[in-house]
Amino acid sequence: MQFHHHGYVSGDPRIQAAAGTGIDRPEELPDEVDVLIVGSGPAGMLTAAQLSAFPDITTRIVERRDGRLAIGQADGIQARSVETFQAFGFAERIVAEAYRITEMAFWRPDPQDPTRIVRSGRAVDDSTGISEFKHLVVNQARVLDYFAEFMANSPTRMSPDYGWDFQALEVDDNGEYPVKVTLVRSAGPDEGTERIVRAKYVVGSDGARSKVRASIGCTMAGDQAKHAWGVMDVLASTDFPDIRLKCAIQSHTGGSILHIPREGGHLFRMYVDLGVVPEGDRGAVRNTSMEEIIAKANDILHPYTLEVRNVAWNSVYEVGHRLTDRFDNVLPEHLGTQTPRIFITGDACHTHSAKAGQGMNVSMQDGFNIGWKLAHVLEGRSPESLLSTYSAERQVVAKNLIDFDKEWSSMMAKKPEEFANPSDLEDFYVRTAEFPAGFMTEYAPSMIISDATHQDLATGFPLGKRFKSALASRVCDTNPIHLGHQATADGRWRIYVFADPSPAGAASPVANFAEWLSTSPQSPLAATPKELDADAWFDVKVIYQQRHEDIDINAVPAVFKPEVGPFKLTDYEKVYGTVPGADIFEERGLSRDGVVVVVRPDQYVANVLPLTATAELADFFALIHSGARV
Amino acid sequence: MQFHHHGYVSGDPRIQAAAGTGIDRPEELPDEVDVLIVGSGPAGMLTAAQLSAFPDITTRIVERRDGRLAIGQADGIQARSVETFQAFGFAERIVAEAYRITEMAFWRPDPQDPTRIVRSGRAVDDSTGISEFKHLVVNQARVLDYFAEFMANSPTRMSPDYGWDFQALEVDDNGEYPVKVTLVRSAGPDEGTERIVRAKYVVGSDGARSKVRASIGCTMAGDQAKHAWGVMDVLASTDFPDIRLKCAIQSHTGGSILHIPREGGHLFRMYVDLGVVPEGDRGAVRNTSMEEIIAKANDILHPYTLEVRNVAWNSVYEVGHRLTDRFDNVLPEHLGTQTPRIFITGDACHTHSAKAGQGMNVSMQDGFNIGWKLAHVLEGRSPESLLSTYSAERQVVAKNLIDFDKEWSSMMAKKPEEFANPSDLEDFYVRTAEFPAGFMTEYAPSMIISDATHQDLATGFPLGKRFKSALASRVCDTNPIHLGHQATADGRWRIYVFADPSPAGAASPVANFAEWLSTSPQSPLAATPKELDADAWFDVKVIYQQRHEDIDINAVPAVFKPEVGPFKLTDYEKVYGTVPGADIFEERGLSRDGVVVVVRPDQYVANVLPLTATAELADFFALIHSGARV
Repeated sequence: MQFHHHGYVSGDPRIQAAAGTGIDRPEELPDEVDVLIVGSGPAGMLTAAQLSAFPDITTRIVERRDGRLAIGQADGIQARSVETFQAFGFAERIVAEAYRITEMAFWRPDPQDPTRIVRSGRAVDDSTGISEFKHLVVNQARVLDYFAEFMANSPTRMSPDYGWDFQALEVDDNGEYPVKVTLVRSAGPDEGTERIVRAKYVVGSDGARSKVRASIGCTMAGDQAKHAWGVMDVLASTDFPDIRLKCAIQSHTGGSILHIPREGGHLFRMYVDLGVVPEGDRGAVRNTSMEEIIAKANDILHPYTLEVRNVAWNSVYEVGHRLTDRFDNVLPEHLGTQTPRIFITGDACHTHSAKAGQGMNVSMQDGFNIGWKLAHVLEGRSPESLLSTYSAERQVVAKNLIDFDKEWSSMMAKKPEEFANPSDLEDFYVRTAEFPAGFMTEYAPSMIISDATHQDLATGFPLGKRFKSALASRVCDTNPIHLGHQATADGRWRIYVFADPSPAGAASPVANFAEWLSTSPQSPLAATPKELDADAWFDVKVIYQQRHEDIDINAVPAVFKPEVGPFKLTDYEKVYGTVPGADIFEERGLSRDGVVVVVRPDQYVANVLPLTATAELADFFALIHSGARV
Repeated sequence: MQFHHHGYVSGDPRIQAAAGTGIDRPEELPDEVDVLIVGSGPAGMLTAAQLSAFPDITTRIVERRDGRLAIGQADGIQARSVETFQAFGFAERIVAEAYRITEMAFWRPDPQDPTRIVRSGRAVDDSTGISEFKHLVVNQARVLDYFAEFMANSPTRMSPDYGWDFQALEVDDNGEYPVKVTLVRSAGPDEGTERIVRAKYVVGSDGARSKVRASIGCTMAGDQAKHAWGVMDVLASTDFPDIRLKCAIQSHTGGSILHIPREGGHLFRMYVDLGVVPEGDRGAVRNTSMEEIIAKANDILHPYTLEVRNVAWNSVYEVGHRLTDRFDNVLPEHLGTQTPRIFITGDACHTHSAKAGQGMNVSMQDGFNIGWKLAHVLEGRSPESLLSTYSAERQVVAKNLIDFDKEWSSMMAKKPEEFANPSDLEDFYVRTAEFPAGFMTEYAPSMIISDATHQDLATGFPLGKRFKSALASRVCDTNPIHLGHQATADGRWRIYVFADPSPAGAASPVANFAEWLSTSPQSPLAATPKELDADAWFDVKVIYQQRHEDIDINAVPAVFKPEVGPFKLTDYEKVYGTVPGADIFEERGLSRDGVVVVVRPDQYVANVLPLTATAELADFFALIHSGARV
């Protein structure tokens, strides 16, 4: 965490100085905004939090509810989300209050007496070490609280505008604010009052029944609901020994339970199988009472019993898997000629079962994807065509999610005798672990993901996948640092320069690259406005192959030690060596001849290049910056 | 973190439900309080935070200043303090914003050209792994903020009463509130107004010129000031390569610098040697200007230069080492017949140089020591004689601190040629590392520290030293857990029951011990009031020698799975197995026949006993509880 460089900060350094739109931010919704976000769920709140870091952009987020969410439905937090929370500065706090999944247990009918369930196996969560972050369970309401705090502490001092219901929008491609949005007051003394807000862009994060989606003519396609589940968050007394472990429980009756312990040491969630929904049920299954669900759970758990003592929340739902074909307002026939104004994210795009614990996570990554792109276009750094990559990238991810969830849900709903092998469910869970952890996303080549020409120079940083952090040794203070954890949600591109073996200060490929980066008019850094700090748009870090004590910081090229803030202080925290026993060159398969790894603001690897490929790097960013700042 | 067991908590689980004195807590200082703390520095704030966890006790903390401290002098945070912050729930947050010390550099005159300094060595901080916590540098003001937050979130909803200056006190040993304290309003429209508050106990945390100390007739004894130092917190540009490393720098002129990087990546503190203060100086040295200090720093750093661009804080001080002979109001001749009513903590008891980075740390441990003792006496758990252990325990610690600091300061003030060996300073630093890390405290046997009869059963938990945490595997959720990190600042005694090799459920010494603990009238648990949860006074945990998957939680004795809260929910989080590769029995030298380790609320090991020594355990707590609840 860097601060004090604008002068001494006495209080919490997480509270940034108000700037731009955050100075005298109006309480009331303005008539014109740059971005209007509809809905304050995980997708909308992440988008808003990302945009809150840009003081020159007016972002507002409207929410129909009249205040903070008290209790939400989602609770599964995959490691990729915790990694994302790290970027927003609250990973360690949410870890401290969440339930942590380290193992999952599988229960099946006892072959000797199928009326009794027995533990048939245990699977270690993330046995392959795919992430240094944890797999958590915590209520969605708390996730939203943390994003709200981030926004409130940001230069823009953002907070959601509660009590506004989205009604309709019209796009009129003339004028500075081409989207006309009609809102209605949904709470307070002026309930029912209509209000027009004009926006440059609108993000619909308004859930499964999204009105923003409807307004741009997207429809959801997918299968019909077929299987019903009762779900309950409860406090109970039980002799079931794995009550504090995530469990998949299959009984001889064919009923099954997905059991999820929750934060705080006592609460848990059970998804209780209510069986196939008969044709013509017309939602009757949704009237299943809590008593029936608890009785069903006791049947499945036999010989163990469950005595529910307090119900925090419960519901009955039918599994549906639905997806829109596009995530923005550009019709397929206009792709390439039009750029989008309206976007949809999260449940507005994809609905599915809750049981793979994916919904909130994928939704947040939707928000992380669109947030910086809107900011860069609005700031004039990038052309509007950047915005077309959102739908292209996220639609594929959502499709994969739906496919995965269909398979997992149908396996969870199968009777034990329907499996070819009794351990099929467990095997599937272990085999596919990378998916639910959130690390299977691999964006295809585009204007912001290069092709794989030089991938062999950095095999551990696959193009299109998220930058997997590793340790490096910060020279200035000798701290071992997780490089990826320094990548905060500040909307900057990252350029990691992994040096050739020459020592700092010697004539070398890395020295030549540094010289080009700092002086060439073709360098991406040349686009950074002169009135900003040199690292305002690009965070450039160098990692030498030597240990920290063998690197002379005074000999390191100046581009890796920018002067920042009003006092022109040297930022020494961008220069690294390797950590003995955890050499990042080994751990991530990096070329000993050096390699440049370019990472997007949302943490995905965008380009991998040799130190000599300055022209290719210039070309890559020329496209991303083309048409910018006109 | 455990919550939800009283019903669903929607918001931040760190905010506890208001209770007792926290319900309708008066804004105004009441006329009568249980504990009045004078001064809101680190010692006072920790005492207040500890007491804030006790809703039946009325604690107020008065501070002469009219609000929050904006910038404090202390900044060194030893690992023992971070461990303490963990108990108050904010370790990870302060780590995230602090500077972390991993190495220290030593600079000396170049033997080839003594006008130039050269790096002569590096010392790794905590190379012996004495703590899993970090060594930090962060301003005292932030430490106070976190304690204030803890208090505000506690059941008592405490906050400091700013703008009150302590004037005098009188003890009149009649009546329920025998201490009459005179305060004067030091801020606001009613400045100068006098006010009487009556208290059961008073804690003077009012600094080096403590008026509480004066009121109980303690005097400070110690040496005269002899050496002057300029200290500055600044932002600067420099070519000194270790500007982000803690350094001891000795120059050929005899001048020296202790250099401390500070939080935020840019700020640093320098202690600049201003030499021996001449006889009759009468404080003239304190008028040394910032320009002179900066010039002197540049002299010492030659050939490097320092250009100061912003000054956050600066001062000149003369080193003095002073200590009071007692920390409470009981005169030596009355020891054993009287118990104290007034206590002094922190700088009120001990003043010394700032350069060993000890002051704030030792002061906080003063507060941690007295806080729970006051609470237990006020709640009627323990006799007033418990309070006499405060002065007895802390006076020795302060004496050791003064001795250590004298040696370190005089070494820092020596000229290079005065050392027998050029590496003497570095060697001293490395050799004595445990002291500045805060782990040398070893309380002597007393009513709350047993003698060492059975120490051989747990060689890694020395009696009188702080319980050094180690990993264990929590059976219910398979999480690897640092046992010590579960010991929050809730004022409870901890009883760690390390089992013999028998499996849970078998007839065994641990099963017999568990039976005695839960059923015997002599068991310490029998003292816990029936209307409270069974673990309200004693947090009892069991650690089996098996791995978690080999422990049947249903077979574990009930005393290790208490029922808690209004719904009588089972607390499963007190049952542990060993972690493969980090077996706590190996790591802490625990007897394979089992051993009971008793730990105080302030985390010091109080007793080590075999599983069969129930009579000894009963006797130990009989004394601590004697005379209680009359």
